[in-house]
Amino acid sequence: MSRIPKLKAQDSKLARRAGIRRSAVDHWPARHQKPQTRTCFWGLDLGGTSIKAVAVTATGAKLRQRSVAFVDRDMEWAQKIRALVSIWRKELGEPAGIGLSAPGLAAKDARSIGVMPGRLLGLERLDWTDYLQASRPIPVLNDAHAALLGEVWHGAARGQRNVMLFTLGTGVGGAAMVDGHLLRGAIGRAGHLGHVTVDWNGPRDDFNTAGSLEHFMGNKYIRERTQGRFTTTHDLVAAAAQGDARAKEIWDRSVRALGCSIGSLINVLDPEVVILGGGIARADKLLFEPLERYVRHYEWQAGGHQARLVRAELGDYAGAYGSAANALGFNPAGE
Amino acid sequence: MSRIPKLKAQDSKLARRAGIRRSAVDHWPARHQKPQTRTCFWGLDLGGTSIKAVAVTATGAKLRQRSVAFVDRDMEWAQKIRALVSIWRKELGEPAGIGLSAPGLAAKDARSIGVMPGRLLGLERLDWTDYLQASRPIPVLNDAHAALLGEVWHGAARGQRNVMLFTLGTGVGGAAMVDGHLLRGAIGRAGHLGHVTVDWNGPRDDFNTAGSLEHFMGNKYIRERTQGRFTTTHDLVAAAAQGDARAKEIWDRSVRALGCSIGSLINVLDPEVVILGGGIARADKLLFEPLERYVRHYEWQAGGHQARLVRAELGDYAGAYGSAANALGFNPAGE
Repeated sequence: MSRIPKLKAQDSKLARRAGIRRSAVDHWPARHQKPQTRTCFWGLDLGGTSIKAVAVTATGAKLRQRSVAFVDRDMEWAQKIRALVSIWRKELGEPAGIGLSAPGLAAKDARSIGVMPGRLLGLERLDWTDYLQASRPIPVLNDAHAALLGEVWHGAARGQRNVMLFTLGTGVGGAAMVDGHLLRGAIGRAGHLGHVTVDWNGPRDDFNTAGSLEHFMGNKYIRERTQGRFTTTHDLVAAAAQGDARAKEIWDRSVRALGCSIGSLINVLDPEVVILGGGIARADKLLFEPLERYVRHYEWQAGGHQARLVRAELGDYAGAYGSAANALGFNPAGE
Repeated sequence: MSRIPKLKAQDSKLARRAGIRRSAVDHWPARHQKPQTRTCFWGLDLGGTSIKAVAVTATGAKLRQRSVAFVDRDMEWAQKIRALVSIWRKELGEPAGIGLSAPGLAAKDARSIGVMPGRLLGLERLDWTDYLQASRPIPVLNDAHAALLGEVWHGAARGQRNVMLFTLGTGVGGAAMVDGHLLRGAIGRAGHLGHVTVDWNGPRDDFNTAGSLEHFMGNKYIRERTQGRFTTTHDLVAAAAQGDARAKEIWDRSVRALGCSIGSLINVLDPEVVILGGGIARADKLLFEPLERYVRHYEWQAGGHQARLVRAELGDYAGAYGSAANALGFNPAGE
């Protein structure tokens, strides 16, 4: 790290435009100066069944994209990530930074996932900087946190500083940014927006939350919610679209629970934009039209302000983009 | 602003220890250099019926404290604030900074309260820097935001970076700090923790929130909640303490609603500390003992982590302290 090269004026301008902290791009070891790679950042996102990876420039232009499936045994996911990184190193040279995201709570020092009980055995406290033999620290993020950062950097919430994200899938995940700061919290748990109470007389979910949003909207509770009639939310929504009265009623109840939760959380997090992602958001206007009505019903529209509802743009690669953004020090708070 | 005096080493050390941004204390106009006043900051907090004011040093030592009652007509509150400032200027000299807090949503530029419908007529968009003819901008905060900042600076959450505050009174107010950042949000509305849904089948409150925490705990709904039997929460709690079965049941329901909301919001904001303030928090162990049980029941204790419940320490002066802290650039995020 003895000789620190200067960026060209052009690079600095691009970096500034992209909202990159000076410290993140102005200094890197001299040996990383291959002209074609030095503004290249890699984002790696470990999911439940696949790894998503992107190689992007500091301004977000995509150089590479990969999806690698794995089976959750014997840390196959870790070996596959290492293999991918090894291939990209040969093909692209050493990147200016690597970021990684995964399920669970990121550790305080951001070098690992600190808490992830139940699956991805071996992930807890795995130090990614060591494991991937990286020359610069690899910052580790929770997957939903990374997805939000990706959407703010180059997706549905570009240029925004106050954002809530809900991912509607098996469960209901979430993340939040306020005043340009991604919320992490005391133990990295902030932004679990699916685990807020809608009906306090409902059963407690895996997180001890009574009658939570996840209970009303998560795919994992669909059989319970429909007395076994539907096994996926997709089927439920399809039946509702065909005019099935009972399906319409159940789906409406799910959407109302989401609208009610968004209304509550607007008072807590005060977003400009609410992003809806995950498989269930593909229901598109069958979700967004009734949801818009419910949000307006429950929203405190102080000074006439209304939060915008938008669909996630980066799909399965949001986490990978966000991890790359994190590696390059993207910071909408501008500090 | 031509000659910028240096702080003495001792001052710098104190300032650093107090978490003060360099820019806030290292530079001020030469004409403010009276040795006895140059590290003096004033915090002014406009409430519903009185103005609280403190003059403190950069390390929080109290030099003066005042409470001034007013009647909410003809902007009497504004005149009384101006008079107080005028007296303190004569007695203490010009302070190094003045901060102000008031009900309503602070404007983006922090020079005024931007939104405050219904009362304190004349407060909306009143520019306090101009009105008080201050030589440095007077930063304006929402009153609950200020109270939280005060409690973090010199109260119940000293040294913490992840904090939720609930003020239990006529309504239920709140504020939140995450990762050292006081949450403001898109229109200054973040942290209205009393307006989250507990029972989505309940009536909507003034903020359109269905069956909100405020509805279950706020003093303004006490008649409704008790079928007219009690007119204050104080009476309700006293009757419960005397063994009145119906009162015990109603109070238990209120505390459970609060515990349930705290459980939800822990998943969203991930605090180390939850501060309970306001008149109802004076119920002390009649509140804290059952609340502790309910919070543990509803809390996701990831990795064994439990948020601490504490009582507010600064009482009616929390907002004034927080305003002073804001004027001197107190910033637990350390940026």
